[in-house]
Parts: sequence; C-alpha cells; structure tokens
Amino acid sequence: MSGGVDQNPEWLATSIMHRRGASAGREGETHSLTEERQSTYHYTIGPYSEPVLHIKPGDRVVVETRDAFAGALKSERDKPSELLRVPFLNPQNGPIMVEGAEKGDALAVYIESMWPRGENPVGTCANIAEFGGLTGTLYTAMLNEPLPEKVRKISVDREKVYWSDRVTLPYKPHIGTLSVSPEIDSISSLTPDQHGGNMDLPDMGPGSVTYLPVRSSGARLFIGDAHACQGDGECCGTAVEYPTTTTIVVDVIKGWTLDWPRLERADFIMAIGSARPLEDATRIAFRDLIRWMVADYGFDIWDAYMMLSQCALVRLGNFVDPKYTMGAGIRKTFVEE
Amino acid sequence: MSGGVDQNPEWLATSIMHRRGASAGREGETHSLTEERQSTYHYTIGPYSEPVLHIKPGDRVVVETRDAFAGALKSERDKPSELLRVPFLNPQNGPIMVEGAEKGDALAVYIESMWPRGENPVGTCANIAEFGGLTGTLYTAMLNEPLPEKVRKISVDREKVYWSDRVTLPYKPHIGTLSVSPEIDSISSLTPDQHGGNMDLPDMGPGSVTYLPVRSSGARLFIGDAHACQGDGECCGTAVEYPTTTTIVVDVIKGWTLDWPRLERADFIMAIGSARPLEDATRIAFRDLIRWMVADYGFDIWDAYMMLSQCALVRLGNFVDPKYTMGAGIRKTFVEE
Amino acid sequence: MSGGVDQNPEWLATSIMHRRGASAGREGETHSLTEERQSTYHYTIGPYSEPVLHIKPGDRVVVETRDAFAGALKSERDKPSELLRVPFLNPQNGPIMVEGAEKGDALAVYIESMWPRGENPVGTCANIAEFGGLTGTLYTAMLNEPLPEKVRKISVDREKVYWSDRVTLPYKPHIGTLSVSPEIDSISSLTPDQHGGNMDLPDMGPGSVTYLPVRSSGARLFIGDAHACQGDGECCGTAVEYPTTTTIVVDVIKGWTLDWPRLERADFIMAIGSARPLEDATRIAFRDLIRWMVADYGFDIWDAYMMLSQCALVRLGNFVDPKYTMGAGIRKTFVEE
Amino acid sequence: MSGGVDQNPEWLATSIMHRRGASAGREGETHSLTEERQSTYHYTIGPYSEPVLHIKPGDRVVVETRDAFAGALKSERDKPSELLRVPFLNPQNGPIMVEGAEKGDALAVYIESMWPRGENPVGTCANIAEFGGLTGTLYTAMLNEPLPEKVRKISVDREKVYWSDRVTLPYKPHIGTLSVSPEIDSISSLTPDQHGGNMDLPDMGPGSVTYLPVRSSGARLFIGDAHACQGDGECCGTAVEYPTTTTIVVDVIKGWTLDWPRLERADFIMAIGSARPLEDATRIAFRDLIRWMVADYGFDIWDAYMMLSQCALVRLGNFVDPKYTMGAGIRKTFVEE
Repeated sequence: MSGGVDQNPEWLATSIMHRRGASAGREGETHSLTEERQSTYHYTIGPYSEPVLHIKPGDRVVVETRDAFAGALKSERDKPSELLRVPFLNPQNGPIMVEGAEKGDALAVYIESMWPRGENPVGTCANIAEFGGLTGTLYTAMLNEPLPEKVRKISVDREKVYWSDRVTLPYKPHIGTLSVSPEIDSISSLTPDQHGGNMDLPDMGPGSVTYLPVRSSGARLFIGDAHACQGDGECCGTAVEYPTTTTIVVDVIKGWTLDWPRLERADFIMAIGSARPLEDATRIAFRDLIRWMVADYGFDIWDAYMMLSQCALVRLGNFVDPKYTMGAGIRKTFVEE
Repeated sequence: MSGGVDQNPEWLATSIMHRRGASAGREGETHSLTEERQSTYHYTIGPYSEPVLHIKPGDRVVVETRDAFAGALKSERDKPSELLRVPFLNPQNGPIMVEGAEKGDALAVYIESMWPRGENPVGTCANIAEFGGLTGTLYTAMLNEPLPEKVRKISVDREKVYWSDRVTLPYKPHIGTLSVSPEIDSISSLTPDQHGGNMDLPDMGPGSVTYLPVRSSGARLFIGDAHACQGDGECCGTAVEYPTTTTIVVDVIKGWTLDWPRLERADFIMAIGSARPLEDATRIAFRDLIRWMVADYGFDIWDAYMMLSQCALVRLGNFVDPKYTMGAGIRKTFVEE
Repeated sequence: MSGGVDQNPEWLATSIMHRRGASAGREGETHSLTEERQSTYHYTIGPYSEPVLHIKPGDRVVVETRDAFAGALKSERDKPSELLRVPFLNPQNGPIMVEGAEKGDALAVYIESMWPRGENPVGTCANIAEFGGLTGTLYTAMLNEPLPEKVRKISVDREKVYWSDRVTLPYKPHIGTLSVSPEIDSISSLTPDQHGGNMDLPDMGPGSVTYLPVRSSGARLFIGDAHACQGDGECCGTAVEYPTTTTIVVDVIKGWTLDWPRLERADFIMAIGSARPLEDATRIAFRDLIRWMVADYGFDIWDAYMMLSQCALVRLGNFVDPKYTMGAGIRKTFVEE
Repeated sequence: MSGGVDQNPEWLATSIMHRRGASAGREGETHSLTEERQSTYHYTIGPYSEPVLHIKPGDRVVVETRDAFAGALKSERDKPSELLRVPFLNPQNGPIMVEGAEKGDALAVYIESMWPRGENPVGTCANIAEFGGLTGTLYTAMLNEPLPEKVRKISVDREKVYWSDRVTLPYKPHIGTLSVSPEIDSISSLTPDQHGGNMDLPDMGPGSVTYLPVRSSGARLFIGDAHACQGDGECCGTAVEYPTTTTIVVDVIKGWTLDWPRLERADFIMAIGSARPLEDATRIAFRDLIRWMVADYGFDIWDAYMMLSQCALVRLGNFVDPKYTMGAGIRKTFVEE
C-alpha cells in the first residue's frame, strides 16, 4: 500500500487483468462520473437501480465518491445518532454497466488513483453507538450502555492524514466498498459478501486489481466508501471517511467464474471471504486461494494447503460490518513458475 | 405445537393481536391465494416485486404454498445438484399488501391451519451437498468431500408423517418462512433476519401469532416453506418440505415498533433473533424479550434479566441457514399479572 | 424435569445404566460425603487432587454440595466484585474414586434426589460484572461499562422458588457441574468440555442418568453447582445457586468409550456438546447423537441425520460459561424398536 | 521477522524489558536445558510438574526443544493417526522457575536466537485427520470424511526451508508455544489462553520480547513448538515443526499486571488474544492494546480506539488450535512521544 499515485506500475502489464481481459490491452475511453451525473447515490446493491453509465472493457472512469456519511457529519460537535439513519449509510456510485459482462465472468477493477476531493479536504471518523468491534451491537446484543458518540474531523492531503496534534499518519487510501450486483437480491451497502460489498480491505487501494464474480448482464458495478487510511480490522467501525476523486480502469475476464472476490497487487494475490464468525471468513478466503492455486498455477490441492500453512499472508479487512472480511494471500514469487 | 387444526382457540381473544389489532375484532373477508393467482413465486424478499393481493386488517388469506424445492424433487432417485439452482430455492407467496400498515407498525399473522395439499400428499427431505449443520458449506468452507446427496419422499396425512418403515412421526406443521419486506434491501428467501425470513422455527405453526416489524407501506407480507414437521435445529438443512393450504389471519398493530420478530402462543411469548454465530442469535432473542418484558409487562430490566436466567424457554429454529435462528420465551403465567 | 423426588422411577430398570452397568443391579452401599468429610472443595477438575471417597459400582453417595459462591454472598447488599475471586468459584465435591473404572469406560451417574440444605434454605443469584450472556466479558471483550452488580437472595423450599413478590417458580433442581477427570489436564470448574464440567444443563436433575467418558483409573468423579431452578441458557450467568443434599447412584459401563457426555431420562436420550461458538456445541451434540443412534440403535447414519432434522429435541444449557453447552436429544419411542 | 540471528539489536536497550526489568541490565548467567536435563517433556501447562531449572532475572537459557510430534513422524510414509496420540502432542521444556517472579508480575522472554538442531536438520509438516482450519474437527463436528493424512519432511538450514522442488521459503523461525503456569489449572500444551500457550504467532521469533502474566511464584516458564517458518493462520494445523536450539533471556517486570500476553519488537508493540470465535480473540487483543496505550503511553481511551481504527496492525496467529490467536499491534512511532 503506497499513496494515491496515478502512474501505472510496470507489473500491471503482467497482471491477470491485462493478460486475460476482454479489452485485449486496448486503451479505452475515459468517463466522468461526477456527483451531478450520479445524482442519486445508492444504499443497496442490486439489480433494481437505474444505470448511470455504460462503458466498455478497458474504459477508465473518474468517480466522485462521497464519504460514508454522505457528508452529514460536518463538525466534531455533531451527534451521529441524530444525523445518521440506517439503512441510509455508505452511499455508492453506480451502477455502471460494462459491455459484454455476463453471469459467469469476472469483472476486473484496477484502481489507478484516489485523491481527496475539494479544497482543504477533511476526513471524518465517528464512533457510532452500538456499532464497532469493541461494543455490543444490533447483532452482538448486549445490555450495556452504548459507548460515547464521537466525531473526529481530520485534515487530509496527498501525503498525510493529520490525526491529532500528536500523531500524523501516512496517506494510504483504499476503497471500502466495491461490488457487482447479486442476481436477484439487493444487499445493504454496509454488508460484504460474495458480490464484494463493504469489505473494508486496506489492500484494495491504488495499484490493486479486484476481481468480482459477475452475476447479471453488464455486471452492474458499484463503488464508494473511500478511506484516506484504515488500520487492519477498522476496529471502531469507521475509518478516515472522505470524499474522493477515484480513477478506475475496468475490464471483463470472460469465463473466469469466481465464487468470491479476488485481488492482485504487484507482489501478491489474495482471495477474500466475508462471513461471520470471523473464522468462516478466514476459511472462505483460504479455500478460495487454494482453489485458485490449483486451477491457475498448477498446484496439487494438498501441497497448496500445507504450503500456505507455511507462507500465507492474512489481512483482516473488518470485524465490524454485518459480515467480517478476511483476505488470504500468497506472494507471487511462490506461485509463479 | 399440536396438529394443523382450524378451530380458533379461546386464548386468541386475549392475544396481543386481538387486544391491539387495527381490525378491532372485526371479522374480515376471506381471500384465496391459489397457485394460479400467485403465478410467479418469489425467491427474494424485498420492495421490488408486484403485489398479488390487497387485504384489510382482520382479513383471512387461504394460501397455496409450494414446497421449498418448488416441486423439482419428484423421486428418491433425483439428484438435488442437478435439479436445484441457487438462488432459486424456497419459493414464496406474496407480496400481500395490508391496508394501513406503515413503517413503525407491527404486522400480526395468526396461523389458523396448515393442511397437506393434493391427493396422496408427499413431503420431501433432501440432503444437499454443502448444505446443512454437520457439513462444510459455502460459508463454513472446508476441503472435505461433500456428504452424499439424498432425497427422501415421505407420505403425509392430517395426523402422521410416515418417515420410514420403522418410524412414524406426528404431523406438527409450521411455516418455515414468514416475512415483511425490508425498506430498501431484498433478501434471499433462504435467509432469516430482522424482517422475519427463513426462521424455520417449529413454534410458528397453527395456533401461533407472529409479529413482524413493518418497514414499508403495506408491509408486503411473504409466506412459504411449510414443514409437515421439523426437529429443533433442522440439522440436515431440510425438513419434511411439502405443499400446503395454509390459512392465516392478518392484522396490524399500529405504533408497535419492533426490532425483531416476536411470537405468541397460548402459554408463552417468544422473541426471535437470527444471526451468526449462534450465540448472537441467542443474545438478540434474549435482549428483545427483556425489552418486551420491560415495555409491556412492567418489569425492571435487571429483574427481567436475572429472572429469565431461572425460567427462560429457548427454541433453536435452525443452525443451517445463512443466519441461524433462536427463540427466547417465557411462560405467560410468569409475566402476566 | 420434575422436582427433587427420591422415589426411583420404573423406567430406571430399563436404563442403559441398569442394563449395562458393572454393578449388575447389585444394591450398593450408601456413603456420606458431608462438608466435613469433603473439607477442601476443588476449583479445578483434574488428576492432581486427593480422593475423598472410594466407592464401588452401584454405590450411593449422599453429597453435601456448597453453592457456586461457596457461601460468600450473604446479603443482597454484597458486592460480588469484592467477595468473589477468580478462579476460586464453583466449589466441587470429590474426587470420588470408582472401583473398576478405567480409561475407555463410561461412568454412569444417576441423580436420585436433590434437596435444599439447611434451615430456611435460601438460593443466591448474582449479576457479576463482565460475566453473563448479554454483556461484554473477559473473552467477548468490550469497552462498554459493565452492567450493575446485583445479588438476589431467594427463599427455596421443596416445592417452590420464591423469586419475587410477583413471581414464584417451581422447584426444578439440577446439578450444574458433573465431571470426571481429564487424563493430564486440570480444567477450571467454570468450564464444560469433554469431561463434563460446568454444563449447566437443566435436564441433569433428579431422575436423569449422565454418562461421562472415563479418562483415568477410578474415573475421579467431581460434583457441585446445584441450581434450584434454571432457565434455558442461564442468561445472566447464574441460576438460583444453593447448597444441597444431593444423592447419586454411580455405576461403571465397561468398554463404552464416549467422546462427550450423554444423558438419559425416562422419555429421551441426549448427547451433550460444549464449545464456542454455540453452533459448534450444537454440531458436537448432534454428531454424537447420530453416532449413538448408529452404534446402539441400528440406524443408518444418513437416515439418523435426516430423521433428526424432523424430530430432534435441543436444549440450550448455557451460553455464558467459558464454553457453551447444547444438548441434542431424541425421544426413546423413535429409537427403540 | 528476520532469520534466526544471535546478535542483539540496538533497540533492545530501549525495550520495556530493559527499562523495567528486575535484572536492571545485569548480565546474567547462561544455563543449558538439554534434552537430557529436560528428560521428561510436558504436555500440560500447570503448577503440578517438577521444575527443571531455577534462574535469576537477566539469565540466559539455551533450550533444546523437540518438534511438536516429539520426533514420532520419521518419514513421509508415516501415518499420524497411528503414531500420534492425544493429549501427548506438543512437548514442552520447563518448568523453569524464575527468582522473584510473583503473581501480578510480568515475565519477559527475549528470544535471542533459534537454530535448527542436529545434523541435516529436517522439519515436519503433517495434515492430521480432523485437525486444521479447512476441515471438520473435534469441535467443529462434521459428518464428512476426514481429509487424507499427509506427512512432509522438509530440509531446513540457517537460511532456507526447502519446501518442494518448486518452492523454497526463507528461514523465519518462531516459537509456537510459550507459557507461564495458570494458578490452579493445567492446560493442554495445544491450547493458547491468558497464560500464553500454543499461540503460533509468527512474530514471536528471534528479536522479539514476549510478556506473560505471572500467576504463581517463580512464574513456571514452559517453552516448545518451534517452527522454521509459518504462514499467518497456520491453516493446515501444523507448520515446519523442527527441533531447535533456542536461546532466550528472561527477566521479571515487578508489578506489571497483565491480563493477556503482550509482545514487543523493534518497530511495534502487540497485544495477543486467544479465544473462539476468532472475533473474540480479535476483541481481546484490541482491548488489551487500547488499555496498554492508555496506561503506559498516555492516550485517551477513545482516541486510542478511533486511532487504531486507522493504523492497527493485525496478525492472525492460528485458526486451528482449541483457541484461535490474534495479535493487534501499533507501530512504536505512533505511540512513543
């Protein structure tokens, strides 16, 4: 994870996206999905919303994402309980229709850059009552008093996240929610699952390619929930949530039928599972990584299983959303011949 | 749980439904929701489908439910993996629009009777690969070989379920899936959650009233997934799935804002939680029961909590669906003054 | 579950204990394990403590159990946090050495009666900080403030538990903790597992036989933690904890090698699993019940699995101890030919 | 994680161990704990075993650890099910008594080096039936057939782990099991918990200091279970298990009362939780890290919680042992002023 840089890295030419994409390396058109064009942001990911854009494999889209609170938290004195209303959290751009994508294909989304949007950009982190990893919640129902509500406004620039007088963090953006549409269900933008969704995985930033399992014609891509930085697990439930200009390049890999999202970066590949309890998210990620190593890299299943026991890379995305997200990865040097 | 009887019990006149229902005891109209009228059954529970019926509080609906396999498993030699296709499982009747039901109200559904439909009625139980409580699944991802596929066809009549040469079980029907629509999401009919859904709770049979949290105008009631009998937990993933004629009476309780489904029978009240892991479903059910005792029966919260530790009734609905379901109840004699 | 009665029921003559016990029906000797004789109660269940009694298969032991707080909570004004000290909770009588019991055998413990001990017997229920089902705990670590500490003193007699001015509950005693020793580990008396331990299962009262997997010579039986009544799940973490005179009859079933505890009552058999998350406790109980049906009642494994999906009885013991306990049972009429 | 190097790094002079240790920087004595001296290895961690060594704070111990199979798996044709017997797995050296360590103190264990022991050193990885992350187990009880048993013998030297013809992994050793004794319980060496135990955390290698909560006089240190390398999660249940010469330096931090183990390396501090489900292990680790930041680094609790949401480092130790282990850490640059 580096910063929000634009320059496409050399390894991209060897990525699965470039080798197998339907664009066949064709330089695509660039589309602009501004706030105006998006107009209505979405809080549920499904087949029932109106497309905002039609693109071709290889096309680039410059997306104006809103923060996860849709801008409702304006000051540190704001109370989330007064200003936020479930299920209208985590607004998504889209759906973007991708020509030629059909059920059974994979959608490839390369994140080219993520930059803070607006003058004097500011991110927002909130401690929301009955939401987060160390508190009783809607599902982990407790009788304890909720934690105190807190709102933090954090200045952000293209290098740094100015957390507090004491601590400055590096700017390491990623996209929290990236989805294709389920076949017939429509899933809250707060929830990750097989379709992608609210994975909150720090590796899913500039320089990464995410592969998503297409379940309907046109794939119906949704994107939103940018984080200027996020720790593993997103423990309090929110990251440095901020509005961005996020640039993606989209491609279609025909006939690559996935069960769960996958991710590729310069030096590793990663399978992503989302479920509760957290061990199930972990199991999903590991099983899918093993199946990937068997199908695409020629490993014997038991060799892959036992070898990952020696060299797997695990990333906790979140343990705060309605389903938790884990990534299981392996360095490319260990799988490529 | 008794059989599928029609005669309305005396206690019903003292039920929450009768005391607080918008029908005010008015004897309603009887509607018929036949297979023909339903025409298209639904596999996702949400606000995007076309209503099949408009009713008033107090009305009765006679519903022709299909079995959970939509009749696809016709013989014990059938292979579920060849004939069933996710997400097209567990067909639902509805949506039924209920006049006057608005977000923040509760929908009351009294099950008057459930009877096997057709001549020589037969139920179906299937052991489906990677589905069930004692096998690796989509979420509890394992590398083990799946269990053998099995289909059982079981004769059913109004008294008995003829499981095998050796064992005959009593006919104790219940409805597996009972839902109102979420506000903007559309949830697979296989999944239980706050809206009801696939709870698979054996207490939800003839003689019970279920209260569901209305989230949209008209409530949008869905119903399906009848079981001629089911053990606690539905361990193999399916019950004696069969087509029925199910008769319900529907009412609206204005201003009774629920977070989760609740149930009432002659002798107990029960709150119902659905989540993973199973302790979270249990926590939800207990917290909601405590809140109910505090709000409607005048208990102190800590007295309720500590007293339930001495006399709660717990029912495991299922530990096989995408979310697990638990009911936590208490005898009416302990809460009513 | 009936009361604390002494009269042995007729079915006992047909129980597994009587049919397969090493005592061969011999009327044994009666031993008395008073507080004086016990002298040092135990807070860890293992092979490292000094035996207090040596008995023969078929012998009866009259045990004076202490309450789970070892009597430390004397008034409703007491503060558990000041008077209780982990790990010195849940005192156990024993170990009782049983002649002829060897690793690979099962120990059978029939509970003949449980009666309140002392004049004006009083039970105690406590809400202990960071303990219980609806609060953050040592393991489900939260940042919320703990729940308020509460102590309730409850009069108990041989018929009733006088919970409050408003509510009187029936006297339905059971033993919370019943164990044999692990082979080399020594496990906190607060924790249930394969050796039995703190299962807190309401069915384990007078009129039940519990079968435990012997792992060391003499079995090393421990017993304690009597509850005058307990709801399913023991939601606040404690029941009506009270001192008793508990009478048990102990036998050995040679060569019946169990993985987990099992229980028998007049009308059903039950397998018992303890684990986290709660679905794993449920899986253990169901798998062990299926294996039991296959080994001892001649069922085909898939028939047993699918049939339990139609008629299993599930009992939640606790979801508050370091491991949670579930029982999965079936009526004897469905397994016996 | 670097290799097995001996040279003590500069940062160690600024470590908590050096700043607060009872040795006050005194260069201690070096002890040798050979296989001969150990003689009997232990499979349960508790207060009931005979000390093998008495040391002073600041002393160095050179320990000959055995592999987790106690050398029983000698060839790739061996069958674990025939040669391994629960609970006799994961042999531990110790207990080592540390002068001056009392309940309420922390024991500091710096790992100076870990080197393969013996000529032509060979590690062993086994796929054991009903053990591992992607299979039904004793606790996650399934009816599926177990996975195939496999044994891999892997050459190891001071630079590399020769996994297969295709893949060579770097030598990155760590100690899988590091413990002090519980107060009265004795816990299987396969299980991690508050006392340390079988955490299988890859960060716990040469160059790390682990802090353990002392619960009995002398601390009773146990150590074993060396891994020549291990991936995050140890997915198949075993790592490259091998016999080592492991050199540790031990100190006592008087009055530093810990609830759970903690770890320090050159660039980060980490709290370690072990529990099921995995989210509970994660919660424990995060809460303990927050408490640490508040107590020792002057953070406000809510600032720490929300800041970790932006910059925490999470390491999955294992999701295969009887309890799962997670570490939650933060870079020292973010906490030190």
